[in-house]
Amino acid sequence: MSALPPGSTIGILGGGQLGRMLSQAAAQLGFDVCIFTDEPDSPASRVSAKTFVGNYLDRAALTDFARRVQVVTTEFENVPAETAEALIEAGARVAPTPAALAIAQDRFDEKSYFQSAGIVTPAFKAISSQVDLDAAIAEIGAPAILKTRRLGYDGRGQIRIKTTADAKGACEKLGAPGILEGFCAFEREVSIIAARGSDGAVAFYDINENEHTGGVLSRTTLPANVSDQTIIEAQTAAQRVLEAFDYVGVLTIEFFVMPDGSLVANEMAPRVHNSGHWTIEGALTSQFEQHIRAVAGWPLGPTTRIAAIEMLNLIGGDANDWPQLAADPTARLHLYGKRDARAGRKMGHVTKLKSS
Amino acid sequence: MSALPPGSTIGILGGGQLGRMLSQAAAQLGFDVCIFTDEPDSPASRVSAKTFVGNYLDRAALTDFARRVQVVTTEFENVPAETAEALIEAGARVAPTPAALAIAQDRFDEKSYFQSAGIVTPAFKAISSQVDLDAAIAEIGAPAILKTRRLGYDGRGQIRIKTTADAKGACEKLGAPGILEGFCAFEREVSIIAARGSDGAVAFYDINENEHTGGVLSRTTLPANVSDQTIIEAQTAAQRVLEAFDYVGVLTIEFFVMPDGSLVANEMAPRVHNSGHWTIEGALTSQFEQHIRAVAGWPLGPTTRIAAIEMLNLIGGDANDWPQLAADPTARLHLYGKRDARAGRKMGHVTKLKSS
Repeated sequence: MSALPPGSTIGILGGGQLGRMLSQAAAQLGFDVCIFTDEPDSPASRVSAKTFVGNYLDRAALTDFARRVQVVTTEFENVPAETAEALIEAGARVAPTPAALAIAQDRFDEKSYFQSAGIVTPAFKAISSQVDLDAAIAEIGAPAILKTRRLGYDGRGQIRIKTTADAKGACEKLGAPGILEGFCAFEREVSIIAARGSDGAVAFYDINENEHTGGVLSRTTLPANVSDQTIIEAQTAAQRVLEAFDYVGVLTIEFFVMPDGSLVANEMAPRVHNSGHWTIEGALTSQFEQHIRAVAGWPLGPTTRIAAIEMLNLIGGDANDWPQLAADPTARLHLYGKRDARAGRKMGHVTKLKSS
Repeated sequence: MSALPPGSTIGILGGGQLGRMLSQAAAQLGFDVCIFTDEPDSPASRVSAKTFVGNYLDRAALTDFARRVQVVTTEFENVPAETAEALIEAGARVAPTPAALAIAQDRFDEKSYFQSAGIVTPAFKAISSQVDLDAAIAEIGAPAILKTRRLGYDGRGQIRIKTTADAKGACEKLGAPGILEGFCAFEREVSIIAARGSDGAVAFYDINENEHTGGVLSRTTLPANVSDQTIIEAQTAAQRVLEAFDYVGVLTIEFFVMPDGSLVANEMAPRVHNSGHWTIEGALTSQFEQHIRAVAGWPLGPTTRIAAIEMLNLIGGDANDWPQLAADPTARLHLYGKRDARAGRKMGHVTKLKSS
């Protein structure tokens, strides 16, 4: 594809904080942004030139949106297949490819794909009945974790099976097609943020070391405490996925690091990722600008990290500490403009740059 | 004043690139932004939650605007006195103070104020007739420069008087009340960007060394090639102005550096400034965030510079080089979303971070 000139309009599906930061990066490069969201008064719409508020299955609205933008991208992977289809039928260029979105929407498909690509995953089995679950536990063992195949995020839709006794009734409680995943006795969690341009060029950011609290990312630090061999393994996996899907944009893969330094893939996100928020201040090109560059057909920018990093998420009531955070000279504060500090909700983040 | 909580709305007068970058900084801190501009489809409005398009003298529109925002600030100094008055009558808090805006609108008042504050300026005389001009040239000598007292910027409204012969008819050609300024045989041009919080705290950015082409800033570099004594002199002048006006926000003063290192004040801008655009990538707190922090009653952020800097303005057709600039790994590209690359128009800028 030829590069979109400044002044073109980039369409973003989704109005949350990722769309907000993508929109700001697009504006910096001289693009207009049009948001499509089902949420009135969304964080992203408040920093964007135009917003369509509509249902993701409303073909007429999607067609109208598609005709006003030069490319469509997304801040979330759970874009219904019908949405992507309607956009493409209306003539929109969609990046990354809907095939990558579809794989990432289903934990079973995703892990099956990883295995086919030679990327190690935890043991897993598809679960559609209690009989399946009992058989899977017999095979994989406990502890294990039962997750919905679709629409789970930030620890939602998950049931921990510590002993085989926990399996009783778990399938009914889950209430949706599931996947049982074997427990991984990992040493730490990391993620890699990679990007592929429309010219096929691939770039990697430094590996993120991640800590979760209640299933939600709470802290990311760099440099990660991993070996060069582990870094190469993560890059190899990311490159394989990027090329298999002829992917254009930013892609994230989360891994468990085992005691021997080997990696076990947990999940992928076909988008910018919370563990990459530090790149706004900490890298020469932010993950948001990188994604916009890729989907606009521009060359990728340099991913060089300029300092050691600590990124802290502000979850729910954490954001009430804004007076202290605003007064902390080491904290670069980002607030997403969400009206309601509900428990577990990502309200903002803080990035701290440290001398390496 | 107490600090405005995130979710408050900040009003900005003006829809240009300074308003655009202020708006993006405000959004990052969780504020909504409402732009008031007389320009439909302005660069700032395309990244802001709401825009009022109206005349700056339309009291009804200004009253409506004032009631929807918690503080009003500005991206330009030529805000009509009637505008500030209408906003204050409608109950708006306006920062910085209209008195500082008023002084900066008139080159004669500004230089008179500088002198009263012990800040050295070029020789100057108010000019309202050819008789005035001839007398002023007899006193100040040539070369000199005749400028309109009001509404000049980027070299507009200026007539160079190289020899006394150039004075003939110059007053009529200027067509407005003027000021004759003596020529300064300066060695270089610098500017200081300073900020004062509502708590009275003052912060300075490192001094900018500036090059102009055709009266328009073309290049800013840091560190500036000046002595510590010169830096202290600039900081002292800025602090004096900030305190005299009980100023809240970012203030810029441009100086000539004389061969002996002493400073001669050229002009002040009661706002963020083109020579400070490098602070987006090059300082821990950008000038835009700093200004928003100040007018919102937040503590100032740290101004530490993290690298040596070269900032290049993209004027008029320069922005057509975007494909080359996008591919340059040393260039952080900013485009302002202006539709029309007219000659002399500021279309964007590029910041290069270099190892110090």
